[in-house]
Amino acid sequence: MTTLNPDLANTHAARALLRCKTLSAISQMQGGIHREYLSKEHQACNKIVGQWMNDADMQTWQDEVGNLWGSLRSSNPNAKRLIIGSHLDTVPNAGAYDGILGVMLAIELAALAKQLNLDLPFHLDVVGFCDEEGTRFATTLIGSKALANEFNPSWLAITDTQGMSMRQAMLDFGLQPDDFAKAALNPDEILAYWEAHIEQGPVLESVDQALGVVTAIAGAKRAMITLTGHSGHAGTTPMNLRQDSVTAAAELVIAIEKLANDCKNGEVATVGQVHVRPGATNVIAGKTTISLDARAQSDNDLADLISNIESTAEKIAKQRNLTIQWQWTHAAEAVQCDSYIQALFSQACTLNQENSPFLASGAGHDAMAIAPICPIGMLFIRSPGGISHHPAEAVIDEDVTKALNVMFSALVLQANKSSKD
Amino acid sequence: MTTLNPDLANTHAARALLRCKTLSAISQMQGGIHREYLSKEHQACNKIVGQWMNDADMQTWQDEVGNLWGSLRSSNPNAKRLIIGSHLDTVPNAGAYDGILGVMLAIELAALAKQLNLDLPFHLDVVGFCDEEGTRFATTLIGSKALANEFNPSWLAITDTQGMSMRQAMLDFGLQPDDFAKAALNPDEILAYWEAHIEQGPVLESVDQALGVVTAIAGAKRAMITLTGHSGHAGTTPMNLRQDSVTAAAELVIAIEKLANDCKNGEVATVGQVHVRPGATNVIAGKTTISLDARAQSDNDLADLISNIESTAEKIAKQRNLTIQWQWTHAAEAVQCDSYIQALFSQACTLNQENSPFLASGAGHDAMAIAPICPIGMLFIRSPGGISHHPAEAVIDEDVTKALNVMFSALVLQANKSSKD
Repeated sequence: MTTLNPDLANTHAARALLRCKTLSAISQMQGGIHREYLSKEHQACNKIVGQWMNDADMQTWQDEVGNLWGSLRSSNPNAKRLIIGSHLDTVPNAGAYDGILGVMLAIELAALAKQLNLDLPFHLDVVGFCDEEGTRFATTLIGSKALANEFNPSWLAITDTQGMSMRQAMLDFGLQPDDFAKAALNPDEILAYWEAHIEQGPVLESVDQALGVVTAIAGAKRAMITLTGHSGHAGTTPMNLRQDSVTAAAELVIAIEKLANDCKNGEVATVGQVHVRPGATNVIAGKTTISLDARAQSDNDLADLISNIESTAEKIAKQRNLTIQWQWTHAAEAVQCDSYIQALFSQACTLNQENSPFLASGAGHDAMAIAPICPIGMLFIRSPGGISHHPAEAVIDEDVTKALNVMFSALVLQANKSSKD
Repeated sequence: MTTLNPDLANTHAARALLRCKTLSAISQMQGGIHREYLSKEHQACNKIVGQWMNDADMQTWQDEVGNLWGSLRSSNPNAKRLIIGSHLDTVPNAGAYDGILGVMLAIELAALAKQLNLDLPFHLDVVGFCDEEGTRFATTLIGSKALANEFNPSWLAITDTQGMSMRQAMLDFGLQPDDFAKAALNPDEILAYWEAHIEQGPVLESVDQALGVVTAIAGAKRAMITLTGHSGHAGTTPMNLRQDSVTAAAELVIAIEKLANDCKNGEVATVGQVHVRPGATNVIAGKTTISLDARAQSDNDLADLISNIESTAEKIAKQRNLTIQWQWTHAAEAVQCDSYIQALFSQACTLNQENSPFLASGAGHDAMAIAPICPIGMLFIRSPGGISHHPAEAVIDEDVTKALNVMFSALVLQANKSSKD
């Protein structure tokens, strides 16, 4: 039995969706969804989700940083742990599915495994991460980093916008902040980490597919680039005597777009901010700052793209007699998804008559933080309109059923393989 | 006698400069120069400048909108009026010479004419305009427009940032607002209007010349152009699925620059403002608004440039699948300087061993407003660094002496011509 009975799949997928809706109501924001790390709503959410885990016959606990766990124990007490999950926190004014859906699907998998008496040769551990979005304290992936022993104790001193330190918030939540290291997992005990997540982009929709197998989580670099020329009167300064920072920045924006377009492996580069000074209609602007966000599936690809952008920018600045300054603000290495898990998810798609397009994740996920300690795999679910982090974030019900089918088949395939190993 | 004795020229030019400095102290702003329409400082300025006019044996009066006048009367009571002047008001944190120097030079011309017993066949009328900059009320050139009977009574209701109406400010100043029409001149009585002004641009400096003869005051059109695409996640949206308003705007900025560069008659076009929404590093911006300021010496040239910009912009928007909106905010027709006066100033330059490069004015001036009622001519004085509207605004002393020499020669040439006519 490697595929689910359709009625069963529909029923469980429907329950996962219903539970996403139920959790939407646990919000610290009027008229929208917002559930941040160590809030009362975080506590309430863990409580109800823990109850759902218990209902699926899982042992549950909360770890030292606030992640919620449920475990469907294997009959073999020395079995490894297959961890499946995502995050339960949200950005302000969020949608109902980003993160949440992945946890709900994992619980349904456990419920199905129990109900169908699957004899799993691994513990099936469901995790609901406490902080992926990083909206409360100036850091992201707190929950998953703690698992990989990457929780940085200096974070405890970070304060939120209300002046509350992470340490105090953890204490108020009932946690012992100095015990954070106990949340770290022993890599030897872990088989893999799987995560189902909405795509948060338009790729699957554009190819008319419900699901996609993630190849890598893109690395990213961000910078603020400032071009400095010379302010001047828009009427009295001839075109040939200008050192216009806006036109220089425009040339750079177009060059960045072209360089990313010319890449072969789905690299992207974005200018999302432009600041012009002095910023008056009748003044040639002396100084313009643009933001750069560049991402690639591999660090080499990203380095190549960045290097091309840098040399092109220097050329533009030199040709136009402007100076250029770079302020690098963020760097994250690319994380590859495990090739065996990619193949497994792809095979599971085939078993369910689903196509399995491969795509990279341009956004960050908890799986990134877990990757140093075990193989990771991710399954993307189509995002209508590519929308996320917004109340209009949605999923197609049928897609969710397909995701549950594929995850279930992958679970069975993994169980068969693990039994033979 | 068509040229000045060098000592006399130096002495009078030095006095003109000293008086610019003296007027700098009459400021409504601490630590900088600011003198706006109908302020106490406007009153104080008119008083002291009127005194200097009296010292040059001129009859003085203030007209119904607050312009200051001094007249050196011709022996022929039916003579026409040659008006020479500029404005006495300033922008906030201004330089000392923009406008002011032209009035001071005109007074020195009158003083010299008196001192040298020139028998002028016209009344030499010096005007100090009350509001060229338009910084107090949302309109410019109030003083010169009143002369051309273009004072719009609806302006009286405009309020300044303190909520004071122009009407009330005129009353407080001692004027009768409803008498504004009495400031209008009879065109039949006017020979011409001459204005010496700092260039406010870098052209004369770039060709290493002290003076330039103005050919035209550029016409201008201004717009806010909004490009609307689609916001998206900077990481998850592939390059080929974007409708990025920033890259579209950048392409338009470059196109605008190229179209202006390709023009033959000194047309200029400037994007000085860029507003990006939502304006986040990791979000492809759905909406970008840029400002456009385009100027040309002739209305036809300006129309051609604008038309090319419009069609190029529409093309860019269409190719990138964005929509585009135009909001035209300002339009001013180009004003040609009188060709006889251009030739006269050029000849006066020759008499003083000065070159006489011709150039257009990209900035607006009182002469624009006077043009409908009489021939106008302008002489530009080199602006070091092209700087104006800034405390660093400067002139080179020697350039001012040259300007006085040339204006004097032009006055004598005009007198000779008018005597023969």
